Amino acid sequence: MAISNIRYGEGVTKEIGMDLQNLGARRVCLMTDKNLSKLPPVNAVLNSLAKYGINFQMYDNVRVEPTDQSFLDAIQFAKKGEFDAYVAVGGGSVMDTCKAANLYAASPSSEFLDYVNAPIGKGKPVTVPLKPLIAVPTTSGTGSETTGVAIFDFKELKVKTGIASRAIKPTLGIIDPLHTLSMPERIVANSGFDVLCHALESYTALPYNERSPCPSNPINRPAYQGSNPVSDVWALHALRIVAKYLKRAIRNPEDREARANMHLASAFAGIGFGNAGVHLCHGMSYPISGLVKTYKPKDYNVDHSLVPHGLSVVLTSPAVFAFTAQIHPERHLEAAEILGADIRTARIKDAGLILADTLRKFLFDLNVDDGLAAIGYSKADIPALVKGTLPQERVTKLSPRPQTEEDLSALFEASMKLY
Amino acid sequence: MAISNIRYGEGVTKEIGMDLQNLGARRVCLMTDKNLSKLPPVNAVLNSLAKYGINFQMYDNVRVEPTDQSFLDAIQFAKKGEFDAYVAVGGGSVMDTCKAANLYAASPSSEFLDYVNAPIGKGKPVTVPLKPLIAVPTTSGTGSETTGVAIFDFKELKVKTGIASRAIKPTLGIIDPLHTLSMPERIVANSGFDVLCHALESYTALPYNERSPCPSNPINRPAYQGSNPVSDVWALHALRIVAKYLKRAIRNPEDREARANMHLASAFAGIGFGNAGVHLCHGMSYPISGLVKTYKPKDYNVDHSLVPHGLSVVLTSPAVFAFTAQIHPERHLEAAEILGADIRTARIKDAGLILADTLRKFLFDLNVDDGLAAIGYSKADIPALVKGTLPQERVTKLSPRPQTEEDLSALFEASMKLY
Ligand SMILES: NC(=O)c1ccc[n+]([C@@H]2O[C@H](COP(=O)([O-])OP(=O)(O)OC[C@H]3O[C@@H](n4cnc5c(N)ncnc54)[C@H](O)[C@@H]3O)[C@@H](O)[C@H]2O)c1
Ligand SMILES: NC(=O)c1ccc[n+]([C@@H]2O[C@H](COP(=O)([O-])OP(=O)(O)OC[C@H]3O[C@@H](n4cnc5c(N)ncnc54)[C@H](O)[C@@H]3O)[C@@H](O)[C@H]2O)c1
Ligand SMILES: [Fe+2]
Ligand SMILES: [Fe+2]
Repeated sequence: MAISNIRYGEGVTKEIGMDLQNLGARRVCLMTDKNLSKLPPVNAVLNSLAKYGINFQMYDNVRVEPTDQSFLDAIQFAKKGEFDAYVAVGGGSVMDTCKAANLYAASPSSEFLDYVNAPIGKGKPVTVPLKPLIAVPTTSGTGSETTGVAIFDFKELKVKTGIASRAIKPTLGIIDPLHTLSMPERIVANSGFDVLCHALESYTALPYNERSPCPSNPINRPAYQGSNPVSDVWALHALRIVAKYLKRAIRNPEDREARANMHLASAFAGIGFGNAGVHLCHGMSYPISGLVKTYKPKDYNVDHSLVPHGLSVVLTSPAVFAFTAQIHPERHLEAAEILGADIRTARIKDAGLILADTLRKFLFDLNVDDGLAAIGYSKADIPALVKGTLPQERVTKLSPRPQTEEDLSALFEASMKLY
Repeated sequence: MAISNIRYGEGVTKEIGMDLQNLGARRVCLMTDKNLSKLPPVNAVLNSLAKYGINFQMYDNVRVEPTDQSFLDAIQFAKKGEFDAYVAVGGGSVMDTCKAANLYAASPSSEFLDYVNAPIGKGKPVTVPLKPLIAVPTTSGTGSETTGVAIFDFKELKVKTGIASRAIKPTLGIIDPLHTLSMPERIVANSGFDVLCHALESYTALPYNERSPCPSNPINRPAYQGSNPVSDVWALHALRIVAKYLKRAIRNPEDREARANMHLASAFAGIGFGNAGVHLCHGMSYPISGLVKTYKPKDYNVDHSLVPHGLSVVLTSPAVFAFTAQIHPERHLEAAEILGADIRTARIKDAGLILADTLRKFLFDLNVDDGLAAIGYSKADIPALVKGTLPQERVTKLSPRPQTEEDLSALFEASMKLY
């Protein structure tokens, strides 16, 4: 179990120029997206780079919800620049793009598919040394600053997949809650749902000692090892923060305490799921995002249609946990209680339904779209959604309860309408 | 904030030979103490080394509660052996000795005092690369498998001090609860008290954002940064486990659940205090150990007198927390509640007394010696005890409440008798 370096505090971003000096960096690649390039988080980084005389080039072409094409564009930039350090300022889209750019620039003779997760790619282990990468998250969601994961939308296959290797984990994550203050409501909400699902999924994932096959050599252990006593601590702690602060953070941009706590929770949940893994909400979310039709979410300042990652995971969560609760129902009930359910008279066999109802109420209170139908899907899309879930074995196998194709169909169907 | 790699599970020690193969190790140094060299934990490691054909030399001369002399002896062994990897199998005494051996063997031109904490030593930063060190704890106490700290008794000065650098943190900690089953009662108790104090002290330590002077460059941040939202998670979690399992683990060597949980709690508390720091119980414990007269604890299979580290920290804990509680009394009250106090009608201004009483009762129930008097100290020793505490600024400065020499005298005096 490996855990990242993080630095936390209001304003700690101002030291980033010094960090780069300490790393001896002479040519820094600063990555962000177009929208953020004009906002305070990027400004704070630029000021520090200027103050410490750091030589850098900026790439602000990161695509929100990146694709293979957009990864390749960033990789090309990185290869040309011959950088000796990277700084990613943004949400998961930016951090993930920067991880990929760092990886492929360090491994110029690799094909793109070499490092992409099997069975879609070849899932080769990373053996080249990467350059240091400092991640500065600006959403409160992915926890990508703490994980060795980079996710993209594989356009050709219409499915999201990723690269997973400890080697691409950032050298340092700078968790500066000031950066959360510029987030509009729906970005706080959707990225917060990602935290919620990271915590719930890693807490309910297949326990580490029930996973099989057990690799014969510890070096072959996957990054996602199943739920375990260490990731449980992070998952539960993150879930408690979500229960206490997510609604406040969404509703009031001035609520610094709530926004700061969600920013930390995002990293905590990242450490948890980065070791334990996620399962069905995430596995099913990849086709939900990948097959997007015309949905354009409020508050996202982008020119293409997209289903924000956090929304794509949370919409199936009531159905998923109703399905998985027969294994370890006590954990499902505990999660429901943390999220506010009164479980004093609950029967353990109702754990799944209770958690599902609690989640539905949580989402309803926050005006979340009413299920997959509200974001453009109908029954006719279910076969394609199932087909897109099948190759996500890396995560779906961590579900405590195995699923057939019929099960997946039923889960998508149950997620069409929530309220 | 940096956190170690750990691997947890019953029997995971059997993979250690493979880990060493993966590291490409050709000459391994295996360190332990004489007592452990005949016990199951060392056996399990030897079996795995044999199975994977690992070439190694064994050093079993580690002193329980190491001294500068015993460190130097181990260092000499390491220098001669030209090892390319280290394995430490034992409690804090073994792990700390192995860290020092690895450090000085990698830095052969350094004087011993170069890396010892200032003001006793020179506190130089470590810039040489060290060899990988795999730590296999066999007590449930120090958490040394997760920290960059190595403690020894400086005989000349009659005071304990140490070396603190992220560079000496083990590459991997193997947390295998099977190793706890051979621990006799008082070793479970005393090492468990160490976990208790790590948790309590790091949770009540000066908050990270009140520490001063604030280093102008982040590279100069001390390993001990003050309490912070990440270390708080670990400290509270460890404290809850101590409350639930320590008594069971002490009283029943067959209670695997309790012993396994304490073994994990030790690592959790280590991650917490390794980042946040400890304060007065630890600062005052160093002269309590260093000035030992003739005390020989039950269950310790050694030929010299010693005050076990866990005992030396816990005996002052009632006095210390009664003293510190005026700063952040709510944290002291919360700790008391976790340890079993009924705080429903408690007044916040009594937080210190309540925590102190709770601790006294906890220790009384476990037949702990009745204060410093019971281990051989009298009022006449107080000036020497205070004098030995003064150079421990690295930790005493993390006390939430600053102390004068008179305060320290009063704390030692109040710790002479507990019940
Ligand atoms: N690597 C991982 O471990 C991991 C985990 C979960 C999700 N992901 C991936 O991360 C991506 C989603 O990332 P995300 O949810 O962080 O959002 P994002 O990076 O896609 O950003 C969403 C939008 O928010 C804007 N934004 C970000 N920060 C802002 C701020 N402080 N103020 C104003 N606007 C701001 C961006 O400009 C963008 O328009 C998806 O591709 C998802 O698959 C990765
Ligand atoms: N490095 C750190 O972060 C850190 C933190 C706290 C304390 N320490 C230091 O660690 C030392 C104390 O370590 P400790 O409390 O782990 O005890 P220890 O290593 O001193 O061992 C105490 C005794 O227990 C025996 N023992 C250990 N494991 C056993 C087992 N499984 N079965 C039977 N006997 C066993 C040993 O042989 C020894 O006799 C002190 O020097 C203390 O200052 C270091
Ligand atoms: Fe996610
Ligand atoms: Fe200790």
